Amino acid sequence: MPRTYFDTKSPIIALATPPGRSALAVIRLSGENTISLFSKCFSTPDKILNASGYTLHYGYFLEPESGEKIDEIMVAVFRKPHSFTGDNSIELFCHGSPAVVNRILSILELQGCKPALPGEFSFRAFINGKRDLVETEAINELAGARSETARSDALLRLTGILSQKFSELRKQMLDLLAEIEARLDYAEDEGPDQEIQWLERLHQYSTELQLVSKSYIGGRLRQEGALIVLAGRPNAGKSSLFNLLVREERAIVSPEPGTTRDWIETWLEIAGFPVRLVDTAGLRPTEAIIEAEGVRRSIELIQRSDILLYIVDGEIGLLEEDLQFLQQFPSALKLWNKTDSPRCKQIPESWIGITAKALSTAPILEKAIFNLLDRMSNPSLSEISETQNIISGDQSQKQQKPRENIVAIAEERQKKLVDSCLKSIEHAILDLQKGSSFDIIALDIREAANYLGEITGELVNEEIFDRIFSKFCLGK
Amino acid sequence: MPRTYFDTKSPIIALATPPGRSALAVIRLSGENTISLFSKCFSTPDKILNASGYTLHYGYFLEPESGEKIDEIMVAVFRKPHSFTGDNSIELFCHGSPAVVNRILSILELQGCKPALPGEFSFRAFINGKRDLVETEAINELAGARSETARSDALLRLTGILSQKFSELRKQMLDLLAEIEARLDYAEDEGPDQEIQWLERLHQYSTELQLVSKSYIGGRLRQEGALIVLAGRPNAGKSSLFNLLVREERAIVSPEPGTTRDWIETWLEIAGFPVRLVDTAGLRPTEAIIEAEGVRRSIELIQRSDILLYIVDGEIGLLEEDLQFLQQFPSALKLWNKTDSPRCKQIPESWIGITAKALSTAPILEKAIFNLLDRMSNPSLSEISETQNIISGDQSQKQQKPRENIVAIAEERQKKLVDSCLKSIEHAILDLQKGSSFDIIALDIREAANYLGEITGELVNEEIFDRIFSKFCLGK
Repeated sequence: MPRTYFDTKSPIIALATPPGRSALAVIRLSGENTISLFSKCFSTPDKILNASGYTLHYGYFLEPESGEKIDEIMVAVFRKPHSFTGDNSIELFCHGSPAVVNRILSILELQGCKPALPGEFSFRAFINGKRDLVETEAINELAGARSETARSDALLRLTGILSQKFSELRKQMLDLLAEIEARLDYAEDEGPDQEIQWLERLHQYSTELQLVSKSYIGGRLRQEGALIVLAGRPNAGKSSLFNLLVREERAIVSPEPGTTRDWIETWLEIAGFPVRLVDTAGLRPTEAIIEAEGVRRSIELIQRSDILLYIVDGEIGLLEEDLQFLQQFPSALKLWNKTDSPRCKQIPESWIGITAKALSTAPILEKAIFNLLDRMSNPSLSEISETQNIISGDQSQKQQKPRENIVAIAEERQKKLVDSCLKSIEHAILDLQKGSSFDIIALDIREAANYLGEITGELVNEEIFDRIFSKFCLGK
Repeated sequence: MPRTYFDTKSPIIALATPPGRSALAVIRLSGENTISLFSKCFSTPDKILNASGYTLHYGYFLEPESGEKIDEIMVAVFRKPHSFTGDNSIELFCHGSPAVVNRILSILELQGCKPALPGEFSFRAFINGKRDLVETEAINELAGARSETARSDALLRLTGILSQKFSELRKQMLDLLAEIEARLDYAEDEGPDQEIQWLERLHQYSTELQLVSKSYIGGRLRQEGALIVLAGRPNAGKSSLFNLLVREERAIVSPEPGTTRDWIETWLEIAGFPVRLVDTAGLRPTEAIIEAEGVRRSIELIQRSDILLYIVDGEIGLLEEDLQFLQQFPSALKLWNKTDSPRCKQIPESWIGITAKALSTAPILEKAIFNLLDRMSNPSLSEISETQNIISGDQSQKQQKPRENIVAIAEERQKKLVDSCLKSIEHAILDLQKGSSFDIIALDIREAANYLGEITGELVNEEIFDRIFSKFCLGK
């Protein structure tokens, strides 16, 4: 019977490295009686039982009943509180074979270890006071970092800089709250000077929260990657463009229309942004069952895309179908293919002329994509809407410009709480400006402070644990 | 400029865990100055420089020029000769993110670490006398073990039991050689009694070598897995049968013929044997370019298969196409599908009637497959050729029968050397029987002993290193 909830004491176990064949695999155990429990399966149990923390031991993993040798292993012993979870822990390094890993896991489960739920190790680190929620989420972000910028963002959050900012801001709000509540008890003590100063402080909180909130789009794009979808009628050149950007022959380019039955996707990096590039099925009304399913999934991807590239065969030009599509998705970056062909029609205004099969097209497109992503990540910049600016925007200059001096957030949970906090602060500002009673203003500020407390987990609603930790990968 | 050869001193580095997102990744370093080199990238270098072997250290991995924190890591220090390679080594545990791993690898490469070639860590373990060749190959086999029996086979080889057997046999041959050479110098010393005893000893070597040689098929099937290919005309029921064996909806079963454009495959385990099950494209002459390519690849897989399952739609019966195929591949296991249908034609002799969509078909087929594999692994058993026996063979009894009390070999290299050794021994037997001169017999036995020396690496041809170690996975 698999557990569906976290507990805080039972010995838990999980594979901490990706599955598959490799030199090494790491299995993690944590929980109060982990060390004695594990020692029964080790060739020299006393070495483990008497081991100090932070030591390594070489030996064999054994099936304890029969004494059968399962693998030659190395064992790291950690004693509480000096471990990742803050509890007694073992890390076991075995040969990276699924057969070895599965056998070891099942033997330890028979000995009483429970398979950890995703995020359960991190949950214990949080419960044991080793990490707050923002740091805990950063561990998961770090493991999922798909680019150098995502890594450095996540590490900054992991080191506690963001947590400190939230805690500091919350402390300031609670100080302000105390002053306001004092006025409730001893009314008319100070007068309008104090209120002006309160207003300044509230405005300052608002500015800081706005910056954090705005950092989310960039943080998310760097962390989760941008979804870029290639769309267009069959044979417009989607697969050629995909291959050009990927620079390898991944999609099967074939003269038979409808070759790409399902979507094909890959991850690449464009100027520091991780990009999930998807080549959709030909968007063509079709009778074939499988292709119809493909078209439905394509539309779903298009709707979720951060950037949509719409490609048209310049030799054929715009058909009714294209116009209908673009009316529905007006923000698409419009690409006019086959400009190298003598039969290519005149490029319409606001379209970008390309030759999907020419290598020289790749840097032009990458620059356009980078400029769009950069603008999305810095929404404070004035909006520039002309296609031409996207194409010619000086990428090198933009890359040199230092990012605003704040740590970006990348979690939707954090963003929602920051926005709620911001809303409460703005409420407080309005109430103060229109002379509402102090207890209403105090209520706003208390609410704001609580939202910040939820971000770091200083105040936490136990029901949200599941939502936070279930996103983690196993062994975390 | 990537290196293409092994060396024995430079600091080498590799990711030792599979790539991908996970809780942890392990990076391995080894080489004389590894520890001081690594310490420059660690937040507390002195802790590493002064560390004893088998200790763990917590800190940050830094870019040494800028001091930028790259990740929070744990470091294991090993001092020669007490390490996997026998040289100074570091194992570094970082967050399992490709971005983190790539950054750390590139920083350490800039510091002078060289990317290890596949198998280079094992090569150093061999050169430094930590493992012989058979044990070294067993490490790789263990990592690649796809089933419990493959794991236990490989671990036995890793613990040196097989190496001891070869060394012991070689020592016996060298003793015999010494006796024969003594007779060369002091002819007529002993007479025919000694020769009879020599013949007995040679026969005993021959028996032992034959057992080892015969263990190879089973060892290889357990280690590398059996390739089982499903073939048949389009819509005969290949995909349904595949899904039945896999017991999940993996292949798209669709009423449109030609749905399976390329092959679909999966790994499963049948009574301890790892099996690579492949569903080929419909074997139908076709105009479509992509399918033609698929058909070519199917034929290639069919030729390489250990077991070929050929399926025919019992409602349609045998066509000329089927007969042609079966003439070409007479050893195929012939399956007559749709026996549940009232329109199903009479099952011809030597065909197995099945219903690919009925769950009850799975155990029947698995038993037939197991019996075939078991017979292939034990070639000493008398040949049984009737299909009926394959079907009804008592699987449970066979599983209980203990495997012959020798450690199986699973490497083609070892098998070839064992066979060469056996040939030399048989030569010696013949020469001795027909009264050839002792120096010819001595030559045979010396040759035999040399082949065994090559197996363990006691005698080794340096040119074969590449061939042995290049099969290893990275970080080994």
